[in-house]
Amino acid sequence: MALRTPEQYKAALQQMRPNVYKFGELIKDVTTHPATRRTIEGHAQIFKAGQCEKHRDRVIVFSDLIGENASRYLAIARNLDDFIAICKMKRWAFQLTGTCTGGRCVGGNAISAMWATTYDLDKKQGTDYHNRLRSWLADAQRRDITCCGALTDPKGDRTKTPSQQSDPDMNLRVVSRRPDGVVVRGAKIMIAGAAAAEEVFVLPGAAYKEGEEDWSIAFAVPRDADGLTVVEARRPSDTRDMEDGIDNPNRIGGITQGYLLFEDVFVPNNRIFLNGEVGATLQTVMNFIMPYRAAIGGCVAGQGDIKIGAAILMARANGISSKVFKDKLVQMQINNETTYGVGIAAAALGKAHPSGVWIPDALLANVNKTHVATLPYETSRLAQEIAGGIAETGCMPSSIDLESPTYGASLKKYLGAAVDADTRVRAARLVEWLTIGSGVPGCMHGGGSPDGAKLVICSRSDWEGSTELAARIAGISPPIAEPGTK
Amino acid sequence: MALRTPEQYKAALQQMRPNVYKFGELIKDVTTHPATRRTIEGHAQIFKAGQCEKHRDRVIVFSDLIGENASRYLAIARNLDDFIAICKMKRWAFQLTGTCTGGRCVGGNAISAMWATTYDLDKKQGTDYHNRLRSWLADAQRRDITCCGALTDPKGDRTKTPSQQSDPDMNLRVVSRRPDGVVVRGAKIMIAGAAAAEEVFVLPGAAYKEGEEDWSIAFAVPRDADGLTVVEARRPSDTRDMEDGIDNPNRIGGITQGYLLFEDVFVPNNRIFLNGEVGATLQTVMNFIMPYRAAIGGCVAGQGDIKIGAAILMARANGISSKVFKDKLVQMQINNETTYGVGIAAAALGKAHPSGVWIPDALLANVNKTHVATLPYETSRLAQEIAGGIAETGCMPSSIDLESPTYGASLKKYLGAAVDADTRVRAARLVEWLTIGSGVPGCMHGGGSPDGAKLVICSRSDWEGSTELAARIAGISPPIAEPGTK
Amino acid sequence: MALRTPEQYKAALQQMRPNVYKFGELIKDVTTHPATRRTIEGHAQIFKAGQCEKHRDRVIVFSDLIGENASRYLAIARNLDDFIAICKMKRWAFQLTGTCTGGRCVGGNAISAMWATTYDLDKKQGTDYHNRLRSWLADAQRRDITCCGALTDPKGDRTKTPSQQSDPDMNLRVVSRRPDGVVVRGAKIMIAGAAAAEEVFVLPGAAYKEGEEDWSIAFAVPRDADGLTVVEARRPSDTRDMEDGIDNPNRIGGITQGYLLFEDVFVPNNRIFLNGEVGATLQTVMNFIMPYRAAIGGCVAGQGDIKIGAAILMARANGISSKVFKDKLVQMQINNETTYGVGIAAAALGKAHPSGVWIPDALLANVNKTHVATLPYETSRLAQEIAGGIAETGCMPSSIDLESPTYGASLKKYLGAAVDADTRVRAARLVEWLTIGSGVPGCMHGGGSPDGAKLVICSRSDWEGSTELAARIAGISPPIAEPGTK
Amino acid sequence: MALRTPEQYKAALQQMRPNVYKFGELIKDVTTHPATRRTIEGHAQIFKAGQCEKHRDRVIVFSDLIGENASRYLAIARNLDDFIAICKMKRWAFQLTGTCTGGRCVGGNAISAMWATTYDLDKKQGTDYHNRLRSWLADAQRRDITCCGALTDPKGDRTKTPSQQSDPDMNLRVVSRRPDGVVVRGAKIMIAGAAAAEEVFVLPGAAYKEGEEDWSIAFAVPRDADGLTVVEARRPSDTRDMEDGIDNPNRIGGITQGYLLFEDVFVPNNRIFLNGEVGATLQTVMNFIMPYRAAIGGCVAGQGDIKIGAAILMARANGISSKVFKDKLVQMQINNETTYGVGIAAAALGKAHPSGVWIPDALLANVNKTHVATLPYETSRLAQEIAGGIAETGCMPSSIDLESPTYGASLKKYLGAAVDADTRVRAARLVEWLTIGSGVPGCMHGGGSPDGAKLVICSRSDWEGSTELAARIAGISPPIAEPGTK
Repeated sequence: MALRTPEQYKAALQQMRPNVYKFGELIKDVTTHPATRRTIEGHAQIFKAGQCEKHRDRVIVFSDLIGENASRYLAIARNLDDFIAICKMKRWAFQLTGTCTGGRCVGGNAISAMWATTYDLDKKQGTDYHNRLRSWLADAQRRDITCCGALTDPKGDRTKTPSQQSDPDMNLRVVSRRPDGVVVRGAKIMIAGAAAAEEVFVLPGAAYKEGEEDWSIAFAVPRDADGLTVVEARRPSDTRDMEDGIDNPNRIGGITQGYLLFEDVFVPNNRIFLNGEVGATLQTVMNFIMPYRAAIGGCVAGQGDIKIGAAILMARANGISSKVFKDKLVQMQINNETTYGVGIAAAALGKAHPSGVWIPDALLANVNKTHVATLPYETSRLAQEIAGGIAETGCMPSSIDLESPTYGASLKKYLGAAVDADTRVRAARLVEWLTIGSGVPGCMHGGGSPDGAKLVICSRSDWEGSTELAARIAGISPPIAEPGTK
Repeated sequence: MALRTPEQYKAALQQMRPNVYKFGELIKDVTTHPATRRTIEGHAQIFKAGQCEKHRDRVIVFSDLIGENASRYLAIARNLDDFIAICKMKRWAFQLTGTCTGGRCVGGNAISAMWATTYDLDKKQGTDYHNRLRSWLADAQRRDITCCGALTDPKGDRTKTPSQQSDPDMNLRVVSRRPDGVVVRGAKIMIAGAAAAEEVFVLPGAAYKEGEEDWSIAFAVPRDADGLTVVEARRPSDTRDMEDGIDNPNRIGGITQGYLLFEDVFVPNNRIFLNGEVGATLQTVMNFIMPYRAAIGGCVAGQGDIKIGAAILMARANGISSKVFKDKLVQMQINNETTYGVGIAAAALGKAHPSGVWIPDALLANVNKTHVATLPYETSRLAQEIAGGIAETGCMPSSIDLESPTYGASLKKYLGAAVDADTRVRAARLVEWLTIGSGVPGCMHGGGSPDGAKLVICSRSDWEGSTELAARIAGISPPIAEPGTK
Repeated sequence: MALRTPEQYKAALQQMRPNVYKFGELIKDVTTHPATRRTIEGHAQIFKAGQCEKHRDRVIVFSDLIGENASRYLAIARNLDDFIAICKMKRWAFQLTGTCTGGRCVGGNAISAMWATTYDLDKKQGTDYHNRLRSWLADAQRRDITCCGALTDPKGDRTKTPSQQSDPDMNLRVVSRRPDGVVVRGAKIMIAGAAAAEEVFVLPGAAYKEGEEDWSIAFAVPRDADGLTVVEARRPSDTRDMEDGIDNPNRIGGITQGYLLFEDVFVPNNRIFLNGEVGATLQTVMNFIMPYRAAIGGCVAGQGDIKIGAAILMARANGISSKVFKDKLVQMQINNETTYGVGIAAAALGKAHPSGVWIPDALLANVNKTHVATLPYETSRLAQEIAGGIAETGCMPSSIDLESPTYGASLKKYLGAAVDADTRVRAARLVEWLTIGSGVPGCMHGGGSPDGAKLVICSRSDWEGSTELAARIAGISPPIAEPGTK
Repeated sequence: MALRTPEQYKAALQQMRPNVYKFGELIKDVTTHPATRRTIEGHAQIFKAGQCEKHRDRVIVFSDLIGENASRYLAIARNLDDFIAICKMKRWAFQLTGTCTGGRCVGGNAISAMWATTYDLDKKQGTDYHNRLRSWLADAQRRDITCCGALTDPKGDRTKTPSQQSDPDMNLRVVSRRPDGVVVRGAKIMIAGAAAAEEVFVLPGAAYKEGEEDWSIAFAVPRDADGLTVVEARRPSDTRDMEDGIDNPNRIGGITQGYLLFEDVFVPNNRIFLNGEVGATLQTVMNFIMPYRAAIGGCVAGQGDIKIGAAILMARANGISSKVFKDKLVQMQINNETTYGVGIAAAALGKAHPSGVWIPDALLANVNKTHVATLPYETSRLAQEIAGGIAETGCMPSSIDLESPTYGASLKKYLGAAVDADTRVRAARLVEWLTIGSGVPGCMHGGGSPDGAKLVICSRSDWEGSTELAARIAGISPPIAEPGTK
């Protein structure tokens, strides 16, 4: 097929077995249900762009694998240019929708990780994982599917490994092995865009050790596979998505995250890309982390761009020139460019893996993760500071009240300023939505915690080398050794 | 009466004319309606404390005015000890409820401001405002009422003064003067705790100039006065207050803010404390700002204390010792103590006004406002960092889903960790509620914007004096003058 | 005598045994030697203020001990007003000299610490330390001496206690006990203002444990006691103090720090205030830390005030109005007021010790220490940013070059801007001196490290209490316990 | 010649006309004089690396211009790889010497700027500047010279342009035009590495306007050209470079900055690359700024690496494992990688100019400038925090005192800890030198001020575009216009 239209994408979702729930209700049609329609709409924007002369190059790329164009979300970044194009696409996707379209990007990232891992694994042990993945991916590109990625396990007690948990299901695992495939049980949680996805690409959630073969599993399954249930998570102000009216300020997109319950789901062999190779789990995780933590800087920057725009809208709605807030806007822009830039730098200092996938630099990618966990918070704070009291916590009566026959006219009179009430409320609600509402994507822990990133920074920094350089300059020879060592 | 019980307080609210609306609905009983009950409950905690041996001294104080004990919220701080007691009470009230009980504290602060202003005004022009206020206050103390404070006008175009607005109602004003009082029109917006209040103490929203006599008005009216309508504002996740179940994590308190529509409300003379004295509006605002911006540091610290506790609960729920997060907890505590401490310092460097009210130092009070607009954001971020992904944006299925006969048991299994799912979800929801939910009180712009505070810092700093000192040290004489001046 | 003139103070220094060295040279007269004259001059300013109607109340206070006025530096703060007066004096002393006059303030702080410690010790064990101290102090007040304080020991290997060091002298200790006193050996290092002091008040450098009686010693000795040698430390750009000309920009004050070598110094009994009471060393250190870390906020603020003035001088010298830098100046002022204010708050939340000395709050005093270790750095950075390239690192030819017959005129032509070269260079050199020159007082580690302060913050924070409050709000009962505990 | 040895480089310097002064003294031989030898030595390290198998590729590159290898400092970056190699070289040069070797890098950057400018200028107006520059550069590469860059003019009153100054010489200008060249007068100030340079590449210091043709001049001259005098600037602790002993902790390198006085210096035509083209000055400055502000992130990171090493040396010297300071070291590393990374990103998002030179992205390059003006300060503060009190301000007796026959042994005893005194003092002095001594390179204003960078950020940000995106999301159409505009 290749490069579907938004309509084709939505039709495909409608044909799937309904298995997404929210508030105890089975959602019959995710494309129209108030709880999920925004997410679908956001992802549909990307399909729309693929049909459009002006934006096509942002989202599609020629694929050697199938000899025709494919979505960048399903394509392996082969070089720096490809990778930068992905960073740009992610920034642009946030600019377009105001938030995350994680139902495609995490999956693409997971595919990249397995591209390298399966290549090395086959080289080492003569398995056939890489060819399986190539076949699956070629098919996925041709079908132009939306494939989300799923890593995070419930994990249970954080001080224990999977095999030490009182309940072995706390990390997704193989419960039985058959000639034609495996049966898995467990959950993957907080999975962005699951409702908007047609398939799920599953990776191990962490690096495992000897004896944890059953947890060392990677595969792809349809999102409506038998035994798989998705329960949508709440998020701040999520019920407003279900409302009409301007309290729900985003006309375009939105993001939801699902809990995926795998109750003995069968995965056929040709969809399994890692199966018991404990030793490859660390590499899998690292191969996932590097591109993810590099590219997420683009996401955060793109949302920051919208925060800038929303803050300016509010300033103007209040009758104030945006020039008054120049210093604050510059700081917001610096924050945006810093996460975007450090990600680009991680890419620029990366290198091609023998399998042909471009792997960003680990140190810079993880430095970026620490910025992603801090700078967007400051950008949000600045947006609230510029936008004023009614935007800070969305402190305005509801859109229902604005239409009250009794006092609605009075409210509208008082909510107007340099523009009418409707326009001003939309702008204020957008700031609220972006900074303290359902538009906050949750990227501090998404893709791993900042403390985890700091561990990688530790391990990738050459402090002993720095110490030797300093000792050389100061004429200290040999360099002073760590106390207690010789 | 003096020192009512929580039950008496609630009964009094129930006897008022219903005039509070939300979502287009007239709330018959604010004490039980899901949209307002939490706020009432939070304020009731303070009445409860007044009945309790252990906490009584926090919230009551002997009043010279009535010769018996009265609520601290209605008492004039006469000296540093009184003022510190107020700061401590505010910190404690946040610790108790997790959020703001602004229905009492802004009113008390407004009373303080007028205590000094009316005293000076009478001295200067022989009016009788101060006695009126004494009488009203003695009565308010005896009735032990909850009196909210109302300053913020809609303001319209921010580049224009009240008399320049195309609609003169954009700032609350006198529309007619009668022998027995005045009739006012306009709105006061984002008024904390209005639903929980029995009276409203109204101040001018800014300093006004010649020709703006009609906007220069201060008074107190019952919250259910004829012509006065309150429309409750939305805030992030506000509809969860209306839910049962654990997605609504605060069992104790909450805060709402109202839009007060004054549609030709009559105010009798004995409740008017400023009437056309344009020249006193600047002093009124400053007298309000100083104690408000000093004491708000205690509020923010008290909520910060709960953020610390909530983060520790989540760490432990995840099986992790809070010691692991020692550095982050220390930073949270530093943030708390900084806003609290700079407020205390403003008080300690303050002085008694001739009217007998203690006025904190303007420079330090406004420095504190800038901290209040930044440090709590970092404290929230750290709480989210400690608490992990499910708390960051409350990324868990709803409490309804947890009870689903189909998949509820499965969700509960996976949401448990070192504690059961119910406990862990409560802890995570509390972090969400405090940092990105309806517990965020909106204190960046509450009581004025940080940029406004910086203007006061400018005006109260002695930069010319610093320049002379520096010139003296460097042997530059005379000090270099500002370019363009002689 | 009481309240000496600057001339009397200098004459007293000239009569002491020369025992101060720098660059291998014995300084005959510290009041005139280029290496020490600035420090003496700075301290003399305080004596001058005591003689002056306008400033007298800043630096003197009525002493009950001697029934007449005494220097605040030698007086016990009995209440909050006294303590605030000390904070103000310290801020003012920095404003006056641009830097530290530590030769008086650390000593006064050490006296306070022992005032409380000796009182408790005598109560507990019937000793006579407190009376000894009263007698010594009354005499010191009457003589109006400059008494520096000495805590910091060389310490040797930081992972070992005094008794574990390979050389027991690494912490100052008693080497012999005699009926009439003790003989001490060791060193106290980095002692501010030693060259300007007439006596040295010595405290143990840390809390010691059983078996470390010999290190548990507190006493006062003349700075020129037999066996005591002072070697002045280097500091950045210190040799410029020895130059004439404008590269040495401070005409008024300066600070030096000395290494005090105690080579078997005899201390008579009436000057010993702690002798072997290991159990009192922790209290001694805490009693020192609390007032020191509260009041140092004033010091840092006072220097920050001069940084503001110096930055404005440079802006104007460049022809630029200081208004252009308003935002940066506000931030500098906020930094100044924060360290000052949190110190004042520590005092305001303090309480009187039974001995009559006012002890600030431990939590806030240590919070302030962390601000003192960070905010002045930002203030310096902002001063450099405003002042421009030639001030950032003092990047201008020397004053000798400015007078070169060959190219001096040319340099002066090019160094002038809105003012002549001489004036502009003085302003730039002052910024350099304050931010990266010999005027930097070293207050990050002075009085203990910020990490040490954080340990106290940990121990004084009530995190378990916060956890209980949070659990109560969330309806979690009992609160979740620390993993591994019941 | 090409690729000289360090000895050849030094010999060349010795053969130049002595015209460098410091402290009023003409320096006969810059390679041995204590005031300049460190700078020469630092630059010589680069020549040494060029001779060394291991490091050669860092500093040399094949030049198409001469068909053989040339120094990277003299080569045009033709693509991203070239540019990244320059960033790496600059980081490595700081690691090698602990500080700046600005005598080569600013010149190389200026050459790049003129490479593009002359190309465009010739295209537009048919001049021959580009060929002149090619010829000069080919010759410079063959001679393998050290060529510093000179932009900063004295500027006089900052509110006036060159033609408005009361003295027209406040910006370097042409005073007479001759058939064979021009005569220039004025000064270039704060020129890094001038003493170590053989030639000076001069650019206009700012963008000029019509009527300021005489100031619109770019050229290269020998550093010892007739009429050119260099006066070395002071910097913090600069006289220690002239000392022997360990108070001068850098055995390898150092940086000095000179004031270049042009007293009617003749420049022949073949060395003139811009002459009166006012319209090209803005482009010249921008072409300089972009690569400079991108690559300076490498410099700052390289010095930050040494700060890490020096801090670890001190921790260990104190007997403390560097692991204790892991969090602080991670933060230092994050700071280093951020300036390095954002610079790399500016390069990666850059593009090739038609002349063949790679021009980094303007927005990211200027964002980096703001990081360079802040993050290294925090890195220095952390180094001081780890290193402790004696390193914070270098608070140790001088090396002369350490050798005193009277008390030297005692000082050494007390200055030792886990290592001997000599080693510990070297480590502490290195921290001092790097953070508050003569090793601080002054990069906040070097290459322009952060406020200037913020202006570029303003102009290169697409805030109107962001506003349109936000308006589209919120359903506001058309976007709200700036007040006062239609």
